[in-house]
Amino acid sequence: MSGDQLGVVVVGAGYWGPNLVRNFNLSDEWHVAAVCDLDLSKAERLASTTRTAVAVTSIDEALALDGVDAVAIATPARTHEPIALAAIAAGKHVLTEKPLSHSVASGQLMVDAAAEADLILMADHTFCYTPAVLKIAELVAAGELGDITFIDSVRINHGLVQPDVDVFWDLAPHDLSILDFILPGGLRPEKVAAHGGDPLQLGKACVGYLVMPLADGAIAHVHVNWLSPTKIRQLVVGGSRRTLVWDDLNPTQRVSVYDRGIDFITVTEDSERAAAQVSYRYGDTWVPALPEKEALSLMVSEFAAAIREHRPPRTDGLAALRVLNVLDATTRSLANGSALVNVENDQKESIA
Amino acid sequence: MSGDQLGVVVVGAGYWGPNLVRNFNLSDEWHVAAVCDLDLSKAERLASTTRTAVAVTSIDEALALDGVDAVAIATPARTHEPIALAAIAAGKHVLTEKPLSHSVASGQLMVDAAAEADLILMADHTFCYTPAVLKIAELVAAGELGDITFIDSVRINHGLVQPDVDVFWDLAPHDLSILDFILPGGLRPEKVAAHGGDPLQLGKACVGYLVMPLADGAIAHVHVNWLSPTKIRQLVVGGSRRTLVWDDLNPTQRVSVYDRGIDFITVTEDSERAAAQVSYRYGDTWVPALPEKEALSLMVSEFAAAIREHRPPRTDGLAALRVLNVLDATTRSLANGSALVNVENDQKESIA
Amino acid sequence: MSGDQLGVVVVGAGYWGPNLVRNFNLSDEWHVAAVCDLDLSKAERLASTTRTAVAVTSIDEALALDGVDAVAIATPARTHEPIALAAIAAGKHVLTEKPLSHSVASGQLMVDAAAEADLILMADHTFCYTPAVLKIAELVAAGELGDITFIDSVRINHGLVQPDVDVFWDLAPHDLSILDFILPGGLRPEKVAAHGGDPLQLGKACVGYLVMPLADGAIAHVHVNWLSPTKIRQLVVGGSRRTLVWDDLNPTQRVSVYDRGIDFITVTEDSERAAAQVSYRYGDTWVPALPEKEALSLMVSEFAAAIREHRPPRTDGLAALRVLNVLDATTRSLANGSALVNVENDQKESIA
Amino acid sequence: MSGDQLGVVVVGAGYWGPNLVRNFNLSDEWHVAAVCDLDLSKAERLASTTRTAVAVTSIDEALALDGVDAVAIATPARTHEPIALAAIAAGKHVLTEKPLSHSVASGQLMVDAAAEADLILMADHTFCYTPAVLKIAELVAAGELGDITFIDSVRINHGLVQPDVDVFWDLAPHDLSILDFILPGGLRPEKVAAHGGDPLQLGKACVGYLVMPLADGAIAHVHVNWLSPTKIRQLVVGGSRRTLVWDDLNPTQRVSVYDRGIDFITVTEDSERAAAQVSYRYGDTWVPALPEKEALSLMVSEFAAAIREHRPPRTDGLAALRVLNVLDATTRSLANGSALVNVENDQKESIA
Repeated sequence: MSGDQLGVVVVGAGYWGPNLVRNFNLSDEWHVAAVCDLDLSKAERLASTTRTAVAVTSIDEALALDGVDAVAIATPARTHEPIALAAIAAGKHVLTEKPLSHSVASGQLMVDAAAEADLILMADHTFCYTPAVLKIAELVAAGELGDITFIDSVRINHGLVQPDVDVFWDLAPHDLSILDFILPGGLRPEKVAAHGGDPLQLGKACVGYLVMPLADGAIAHVHVNWLSPTKIRQLVVGGSRRTLVWDDLNPTQRVSVYDRGIDFITVTEDSERAAAQVSYRYGDTWVPALPEKEALSLMVSEFAAAIREHRPPRTDGLAALRVLNVLDATTRSLANGSALVNVENDQKESIA
Repeated sequence: MSGDQLGVVVVGAGYWGPNLVRNFNLSDEWHVAAVCDLDLSKAERLASTTRTAVAVTSIDEALALDGVDAVAIATPARTHEPIALAAIAAGKHVLTEKPLSHSVASGQLMVDAAAEADLILMADHTFCYTPAVLKIAELVAAGELGDITFIDSVRINHGLVQPDVDVFWDLAPHDLSILDFILPGGLRPEKVAAHGGDPLQLGKACVGYLVMPLADGAIAHVHVNWLSPTKIRQLVVGGSRRTLVWDDLNPTQRVSVYDRGIDFITVTEDSERAAAQVSYRYGDTWVPALPEKEALSLMVSEFAAAIREHRPPRTDGLAALRVLNVLDATTRSLANGSALVNVENDQKESIA
Repeated sequence: MSGDQLGVVVVGAGYWGPNLVRNFNLSDEWHVAAVCDLDLSKAERLASTTRTAVAVTSIDEALALDGVDAVAIATPARTHEPIALAAIAAGKHVLTEKPLSHSVASGQLMVDAAAEADLILMADHTFCYTPAVLKIAELVAAGELGDITFIDSVRINHGLVQPDVDVFWDLAPHDLSILDFILPGGLRPEKVAAHGGDPLQLGKACVGYLVMPLADGAIAHVHVNWLSPTKIRQLVVGGSRRTLVWDDLNPTQRVSVYDRGIDFITVTEDSERAAAQVSYRYGDTWVPALPEKEALSLMVSEFAAAIREHRPPRTDGLAALRVLNVLDATTRSLANGSALVNVENDQKESIA
Repeated sequence: MSGDQLGVVVVGAGYWGPNLVRNFNLSDEWHVAAVCDLDLSKAERLASTTRTAVAVTSIDEALALDGVDAVAIATPARTHEPIALAAIAAGKHVLTEKPLSHSVASGQLMVDAAAEADLILMADHTFCYTPAVLKIAELVAAGELGDITFIDSVRINHGLVQPDVDVFWDLAPHDLSILDFILPGGLRPEKVAAHGGDPLQLGKACVGYLVMPLADGAIAHVHVNWLSPTKIRQLVVGGSRRTLVWDDLNPTQRVSVYDRGIDFITVTEDSERAAAQVSYRYGDTWVPALPEKEALSLMVSEFAAAIREHRPPRTDGLAALRVLNVLDATTRSLANGSALVNVENDQKESIA
């Protein structure tokens, strides 16, 4: 390990931890100082894929090590807050898996604590660092799509039923963090409605539909599903100029930009003639070349850069809090007969 | 034309009329007696693809011809009722394009008139006669899927903005008629919610999401969209035993039956152990061979058989009325902030 | 039928005849004067889809009718020559299904007879009139692909074993006519090798591979197959600037133009350094919008235009003869242990 | 590292070496004793992804280490022989990347040396250990496909032009090793023809077609291509009973078994009636569930098992030599105007 490398403790040697360890280990900016898991043998096995990491079973033990600059948390959401607060109290920067925490209040605590300690709090919204999402954000920002008319995101799979959360809290953080990343100003819907199916009668939704009316008649919709036999990960971003489709499972054509649309001309009272007032564009399709880069590698670099440059990372705690706000609204909508409920977007402004 | 062929008048020489004419003309059971359209040249051109049809410009003229047993209506929904009632008054059987009419009340009038006159009223729910939907209905009826857990239907396209109806009334009749056909007992949801996007501000939804909670935590969802740059026509029917996917745009594999599922074992109070109580099946996939038959050819045969056997056709007026009931509910939900609204399923029972 | 419409007799009411009848019937340029088939009931049934056609059972009967300008032949290849020569002798223009005839000598007779009588002889190379192939020919002619580096055509299917021809003569005429259409100067390979599989031991190839070395190290290859369980119709045209893929079974993206390639820099003796002398381009992909037009409709218009303008049609007898030359070479190669054999490209020049 | 683990030296820290290191490191059966590469910094970086490996720059240094049981060679083919012979001389078992060596003679030397020293020589034919190929081999062995009628393998990509070998030697070892694995008795064609395109005029084929006539009219064909803009990895195994398609890039449906075929009934002299003697089956398609296992993990287990059980591994030196025999024949065919040339299958029998 070089003297100017940052040291990180990875907490959680389960599903995602190994990916974090591999990417921190391969990065010139980082070395893995420790792997922490309640199960020592899992921690040791994962530590053995590095030259530098020791295996520990408690966060206190990890924080007591020399050369630790940051803590990366890959444990269940319910445990994020205590680990993060301990790390912040010890003066460490923090990276958490999605979602930031299990509730808005808890996430807000984490954001506030990091802000007060002047430390970086970053969410590992991995998809935001994929070449596809970076390109989509760039195209939207450059106005290539025009005004956004609709957003339709589908993330369905024969997935694992999670013991502690419903399908919205399990899968929708991906979609919501992507929307937060690509929408100018971030994801700030006024209202959300959620519809859930619980056909196995597990007491939580396994099939979920989330609707967010946007400004000027636009609409965003997310379909998340643990019971689908096939896997679909597709995002459509409709625009007044062009419409974009991201198919994450098509490696040779992930992002397609369609120059197809409906141009609005004029509205009269006469409904019979309304069709004639619309003009259709059937233009070419463009598939931008994307670099072959691993998202996690970019993410760990961004974490290092934010620490060194003392600036918020691209997916900071506030972004993660906006995602939590929407998730919280889905839970309230489900409890209210799927009614449209308000999203509390105000609280986070106070701390920005 | 043979003496025992039935004679049909096709009303409307626009988009769908030619398909009806071609199939009636090729059927041994039918001959086309007339093509009726306000535009005589269109009527003549279409009539010239048969040896038997005359071209006329009014329904009265058509009904006055000899050898007319039935009237097939392929005009906008708003015009169905007067044409159908005139045909019924003249003692003719009636076939209508979807939807049956532009309102539940109007559709009910048509159903009642046909019942009173003891004539067949059939809806051309074409998709129900495709080999794929016939196979799906057969599999569901045989219990191959087990209990239905969720239904997800997507019908999106760069479609024509219709002058008189929104995207629900334009496209969802397809999905709803299919659901009515495959669900045991037909489509009879208690409640419906609809979410619409109108980003072009045309005063009607161009992007639509329709949700129907079903019994025992199951859920049905339909996505219809005029603004999608790509075309998707996919129906997933989730079941407790197997899950089925119908991809209508994949000619070599339209229907796939996945032996994948989540078996529910037992629920305890302890949420930590809930995951262990679930068992996953990752079995084989089966793609049933489907005959290569044109749906419209089967549909015109069913119309003839219903007339000859004096029995309701498979997609009769009541089925079409159940579809109208749901469409009507979408309109009421949209007017009520996308709330779940009741579906009026009772009225039609009185006339069955 | 209008006075200045051309009259056509369609010979053969089997698989392809109905498509010709439908398109001639819908064209403003044509009327169908007769349908001719040995089986009168088939002729009558097909004639009944027009207002104008009579049904006849002999070509002599058809040629004796008034108002016949042209004969369209949709019968097995072995019967093309006598029908075409009779039509030409009667002063009629001739359109034939692919291939032009069953041998080069026979095809040459037909070409010579038409030339002598100053009549149009056209081959219904239908694919050449699809929007996709028209676009490909345009792109190649404009130099968008650069020099052609390789051509790979796959046309495989669970197809009908033909009684009289092998898989090369049955399917490769499609590929070869397309190559003839898009290659500047037409398809004129010097040599051809053919490899055939006859696993059912029917005495003819059911699986075929056809190779044509082209100038400057380029190569063309065609795979035709009656035994494939899946259907593929794909053509790749590799170019020094860009490479094009035509997937005929993907309606939403038939033609894709890839700005990917390998740029040649310099060659040294040192093989170790050769890799460094090559530079790779991974640019964007472009999917040109294609009009929605039926190929057969364009084809019958081209036939009419060639007759009226007294000029060779785009797919004339000489083009069809070039296709026959290659087919003839495949047969000779198969008889010679799959050796590369010469293609006789000279004969046709004498008559041009 | 546990006392009964086998120790392996991985030679070559380039493209493939990291995959070997990762899998040996994660295996309970192995520990990585050393990483050897001429470039010390590459060796060190790769060694640092393990807890156990030292980095060395020469094979002699590696062989002198304690606890080395085997050597895994992931260097260019031309260097395999000296490394393998040195390892065998030192009493080590050997695993080599594909192809076994750069010539039949060289590969034979390696096979002979290992046999004489009673050591395991195994080829890392990775694809043979994928769940898909294991399933295919099982289905073929069980007679599920019946007699093999044709084999069509396509492996095309925008690939790297290799400095020292043509596209046949670069890519076809994959296809040939798979065929060797699934064909009962291994891959032993009598003759091979090869057609190559060299449009960049690099002095070697960049586009290659390889044909192998099999017994009883069956045929095998392999298409390898460095210039394709799209990536295809597809194998079709046609059978008299069923036909199988392996699409390696379709993660949700890699292997499909089609119950479609052509049943041969009887042949008469009368070619007109031949069509009637053939009967077509259009049965269901079956997609067997495949376990999610990493092929390399199974491969390193098989290497350990072969060593411990003192038995040939599934992809032993003789299998690799059969692949070399075919590659050698492609080179001779290319030098002989693409003629069918004999494959030397005898030599290896002498040592079996």
